[in-house]
Amino acid sequence: MTIGFIGLGIMGRPMSKNLIKAGYKLAVYDKFAKFDDLVALGAEGASSNKEAASKSDVVITMLPNSPHVKEAILGPGGVIEGIGPGKIVVDMSSIAPAASREVEEALKAKGAAFLDAPVSGGEPKAVDGTLAIMVGGDQKSFDTVKPILEKMGSSVTLVGDIGSGNITKLANQIVVALNIAAVSEAFVLAAKAGVDPVKVFDAIKGGLAGSTVMNAKIPMILDGNFKPGFRVELHIKDLQNALDTAHKLGVPVPLTAAVMETLQALKVDGMVASDHSAIIRYYEKLAQIEVRK
Amino acid sequence: MTIGFIGLGIMGRPMSKNLIKAGYKLAVYDKFAKFDDLVALGAEGASSNKEAASKSDVVITMLPNSPHVKEAILGPGGVIEGIGPGKIVVDMSSIAPAASREVEEALKAKGAAFLDAPVSGGEPKAVDGTLAIMVGGDQKSFDTVKPILEKMGSSVTLVGDIGSGNITKLANQIVVALNIAAVSEAFVLAAKAGVDPVKVFDAIKGGLAGSTVMNAKIPMILDGNFKPGFRVELHIKDLQNALDTAHKLGVPVPLTAAVMETLQALKVDGMVASDHSAIIRYYEKLAQIEVRK
Repeated sequence: MTIGFIGLGIMGRPMSKNLIKAGYKLAVYDKFAKFDDLVALGAEGASSNKEAASKSDVVITMLPNSPHVKEAILGPGGVIEGIGPGKIVVDMSSIAPAASREVEEALKAKGAAFLDAPVSGGEPKAVDGTLAIMVGGDQKSFDTVKPILEKMGSSVTLVGDIGSGNITKLANQIVVALNIAAVSEAFVLAAKAGVDPVKVFDAIKGGLAGSTVMNAKIPMILDGNFKPGFRVELHIKDLQNALDTAHKLGVPVPLTAAVMETLQALKVDGMVASDHSAIIRYYEKLAQIEVRK
Repeated sequence: MTIGFIGLGIMGRPMSKNLIKAGYKLAVYDKFAKFDDLVALGAEGASSNKEAASKSDVVITMLPNSPHVKEAILGPGGVIEGIGPGKIVVDMSSIAPAASREVEEALKAKGAAFLDAPVSGGEPKAVDGTLAIMVGGDQKSFDTVKPILEKMGSSVTLVGDIGSGNITKLANQIVVALNIAAVSEAFVLAAKAGVDPVKVFDAIKGGLAGSTVMNAKIPMILDGNFKPGFRVELHIKDLQNALDTAHKLGVPVPLTAAVMETLQALKVDGMVASDHSAIIRYYEKLAQIEVRK
């Protein structure tokens, strides 16, 4: 079985390396990035999305957002021109669920299957092959590609039909953003009241207020360390998809909209490349205090 | 050593029982509730706050909010009339930090020490003696009462000077309320998009979106079970104290203010006695869908 891998950025590159390590034959392509290193590891280089697809049984895409996925799959020289019955395209990008459904329609007309399979975990887990992968699509295609996905992730869950993977990812990103805002409001209040944030962390992390966000981000915040991790600009993209999707579905999400505005404020401050835990910087600025050790 | 215990409600009653079980001599009093059961267990009944205090070395109060604490300690026939040098008053209620400081001033003038020591964990942990207790005050008084507090809690942390216990509790309650709102917006969106909320829970709980709130509340929400737990009306009280404190200190907390409004909407709907996870009912109503198994 040959796997086409399109999109060799911060995430796609280590993910494709894990597939090569697992013994899969790869046909790789990226419109902008070089991939000599992957060819040196045994992958075949392709000269277009179409060529990567035509050489493969399963095609994986890992791209920034909906327009990039639609262009790479449906655009001129795209995956759709190299695809046919029996082939499966797996989009592991985080995009709008409506875009996933649009791509599926077009591929179905050519006899190919499509799964949306966005990931959670960021670069470190892409490198380790321990991503959480949330899949939308049909059971048969899922069963076929599951062994491949398991080489990139430690948790691979079929959550529903096409688009469900990205719906689940948006739900994940809403919770993460709001949980960061939650610890931000709480710890800035405590710090301004003169209470040692290290002691507040110790006192509350084991109770109902505990969260993976608190455990992961408060130690970084206490060090003033906002190196990504997961960049503000990517969370802006995800929340924009969340807001668009929510509004189309008729689901008011006022707190998601509010935390989006704090991310926009960070963008104005030139912090798009900071870790999303920099949401606390917004509150620190408002309250004129820093939450530090 | 005799311990005065004032306030024998849902929380204070099991807490005082744990002290009796541990072998302490208690003098108990409650302005409204009967306490025959505690007397039957060996406690001495007092006829006023003053009498409970005059018979004791350490006085614990466990009352609804700031006005009740101020009345019981500083009011006519209050603790302050039965107190003197060397005695320690420990208020375990969740109240405004400014009220704790006011009470401390008055008790200090009489030579007595004061600690604010609010708890987290609710009735089940009060019964089990596994509360998280966050203490503000001086190290010496803390060291004296710590063995007593350890009979009621599994975690007893001195977080700072007087008022710091309640600041920490407010930080805790901000995080809890916002984490409930976070899973509410996320799961209502997923449900309205037609994705099985059970699968969303399975797919995201192990990642960065994971939280104690998600693990504790989503299974109840999926069952449509909003039995408290922790009542909406109590979270309203805590967030009012959080907002008042934040505004006095100069800390804007816009998301805390927003989630307070969802609790107010539940109050309008007659749900003050529901568990605070009923915050999701606000969103379910807006989106005209229920997040259920």
